[in-house]
Amino acid sequence: MPHTLESLRADYDALKARGLSLDLTRGKPSAAQLDLSNGLLGIDLSDDYRDAAGTDLRNYGGADGVLELRQIFAEVLGIPVAQLLAGNNASLQFMHDTLVHALLHGVPGGEPWVGQDVAFLCPSPGYDRHFALTESFGIRMISVPYLADGSLDLPAIAEHLADPAVRGMWLVPTYANPTGSVVDEATARALVALPAAAGDFRIFWDNAYAVHHLTEAEPAPLDILGFAAEAGNPDRVFVYASTSKITQAGAGVSFFASSPANVAWFREHASVQTIGPDKLNQLRHARFFRDAEGVRALMRRHRELLAPKFALVDRVLGEKLSGRATWTKPAGGYFVTLYAPDGTAARAVQLAKGAGIAITPAGAAYPYGDDPRDSVIRIAPSLPPESELEPAIEALALCVLLAEAELGAPTR
Amino acid sequence: MPHTLESLRADYDALKARGLSLDLTRGKPSAAQLDLSNGLLGIDLSDDYRDAAGTDLRNYGGADGVLELRQIFAEVLGIPVAQLLAGNNASLQFMHDTLVHALLHGVPGGEPWVGQDVAFLCPSPGYDRHFALTESFGIRMISVPYLADGSLDLPAIAEHLADPAVRGMWLVPTYANPTGSVVDEATARALVALPAAAGDFRIFWDNAYAVHHLTEAEPAPLDILGFAAEAGNPDRVFVYASTSKITQAGAGVSFFASSPANVAWFREHASVQTIGPDKLNQLRHARFFRDAEGVRALMRRHRELLAPKFALVDRVLGEKLSGRATWTKPAGGYFVTLYAPDGTAARAVQLAKGAGIAITPAGAAYPYGDDPRDSVIRIAPSLPPESELEPAIEALALCVLLAEAELGAPTR
Repeated sequence: MPHTLESLRADYDALKARGLSLDLTRGKPSAAQLDLSNGLLGIDLSDDYRDAAGTDLRNYGGADGVLELRQIFAEVLGIPVAQLLAGNNASLQFMHDTLVHALLHGVPGGEPWVGQDVAFLCPSPGYDRHFALTESFGIRMISVPYLADGSLDLPAIAEHLADPAVRGMWLVPTYANPTGSVVDEATARALVALPAAAGDFRIFWDNAYAVHHLTEAEPAPLDILGFAAEAGNPDRVFVYASTSKITQAGAGVSFFASSPANVAWFREHASVQTIGPDKLNQLRHARFFRDAEGVRALMRRHRELLAPKFALVDRVLGEKLSGRATWTKPAGGYFVTLYAPDGTAARAVQLAKGAGIAITPAGAAYPYGDDPRDSVIRIAPSLPPESELEPAIEALALCVLLAEAELGAPTR
Repeated sequence: MPHTLESLRADYDALKARGLSLDLTRGKPSAAQLDLSNGLLGIDLSDDYRDAAGTDLRNYGGADGVLELRQIFAEVLGIPVAQLLAGNNASLQFMHDTLVHALLHGVPGGEPWVGQDVAFLCPSPGYDRHFALTESFGIRMISVPYLADGSLDLPAIAEHLADPAVRGMWLVPTYANPTGSVVDEATARALVALPAAAGDFRIFWDNAYAVHHLTEAEPAPLDILGFAAEAGNPDRVFVYASTSKITQAGAGVSFFASSPANVAWFREHASVQTIGPDKLNQLRHARFFRDAEGVRALMRRHRELLAPKFALVDRVLGEKLSGRATWTKPAGGYFVTLYAPDGTAARAVQLAKGAGIAITPAGAAYPYGDDPRDSVIRIAPSLPPESELEPAIEALALCVLLAEAELGAPTR
């Protein structure tokens, strides 16, 4: 039975009357997920504060991070340990610092970016905090829409790279935020081989969800640094990762990796900025994981908690929006992207807010908040329990339908 | 009996023959000092990860830091808690970030510094890492020598402030690195009241040794933010502090404080750079200290370990160099400054190195490494045990005497 504007309005009024207060905005782990790593918080280092080489990790120094932990993540991420640095709790800080060093000092082989016309390619929809970073520095952002099948538009990217202003590109290669897109090997090899007018062009390869699988398929991370070297562009890629969605979101360890030349460059500038990261938290993580398999085993326990939530979202959207909207069915990561009918996303989010359901602002997944079709709604299912997630998705679906019905209704 | 060049050379050859390997370079806490906070490393947060307000500190968020810990250090540092942010493990990072935000965005009331002629006043001798930061950003450094009594040269500072290029000033107000100088209230009030041609002039008030007393006198930190507000220049001062030399040097908590306008400015730029500091380490610190008195009590135990080392340095220098050199007798902090005869510091450090004694490079305490009198040698007594400290200081004294004797000797 098709909905009428009147029946949808009545349903919406009933929804409002329920006085819900639900939040689907951020990709935060749930308390149950954080509980998986509570063992980390009980590790006693009071008599165990040396690394395998015998260095007292309580003191200053050790800018590269604790070797034991770097070895574990070198295996997890498929990166040579000498090219992998471990930092403090936020990979966003590593990205920020890379941008700052590039702006003020220039990357190897380039001049400082500050004062120049610098542009970044932004596959969209993408991660709002990436865009906030580049926007804050006045870097011009060029939206490059994903293709309908979720893959990168390589011809468009190739065309943009002919512009010498294009110095960077954001990319979440695995289970992208928010589309769940995965860059395959052929695309990765193409990306690092494309001719670029700017000799200092860099891909900011944010592998935030490298091991965050929602299915039993657990593909290994691509050897992007190896591909870049083979393509003759060894310095093209900065790699980022973290344990924020592996252990404790606010108290994990972040990683930076790149070519030997880029790592030397980063280390040089980092050396005036800090006397080293918190090595005790890194040691705690090494003790907690034991080895790379420890990381993978933990991620399977996350999957047990997350997969049912994603299944729930898919089921409810199917029940409520089948034929009216489309959405992603990601094999990993933290988000579902709902493609609402064109011109309805902002209104649907507004309606949801009015009914007590907080949704990431429409447009947030686009540079400058500009979703040209006003269609994308990012759903973050991880934080709420299923008992809250189900009514929240039902409510959101109703808001999408009402927004669509309003479009066809005479102006009030 | 006066030394002869020949007898000093013989002594030096004997020293070399001992094959020592001693290090007086960095102001690192000793293992015994770090042991004082081993209890911190055993705190079990696995069932205790909420702040007093009930917030789960394992997750993202909480950009200002954990309130309980900020309250403790608000009392320790004499700063309103609303104006005090707690960060990760390095106050140097806060200083770096302040400079970066100032360069790229400008401080409140000012334009971005980048691309402008920007100069910093550097009371000298000072902290080499301060100077490395400003030098890395191409900020022009103007050395302002301390007066003979260790106080700031206010007339010289006032004169420099007539230059609109002067946007900043480094200052370690309490037990300065390396002179041990202490800024008194009258000087502090004068500093924040001086007319400055640059409306966005800022003092980087690095209170790294605020509670690091070597005597039983424990003066409270000056209310520098209050003084600045009273003087009508509320935004003039950025305050930094950390627990690096209170708990674990590499895994402590850093602090940033300033006027409400400056804190809002810093918070705005930090919000694109991180989703918050490691709050669990902050909670661990709050649990460990309990309260401000807990911090002070811990610092008394540090004093018990440090004061004898400073007494040893003073005694040996007195025995070996009385009448030939002068040196500071600090009431706190981490350093003794030895004023060797003019023109001998670099040579003495070189001789010491040849005998296996690592000393901070001569000149390091000056901007651009330029000690105009080639006199200052920074001694860091904290790290080595007294059994190593005594021969190291004896050896250094011998090297100073030999360098002096060489000066008067015919050119070889």
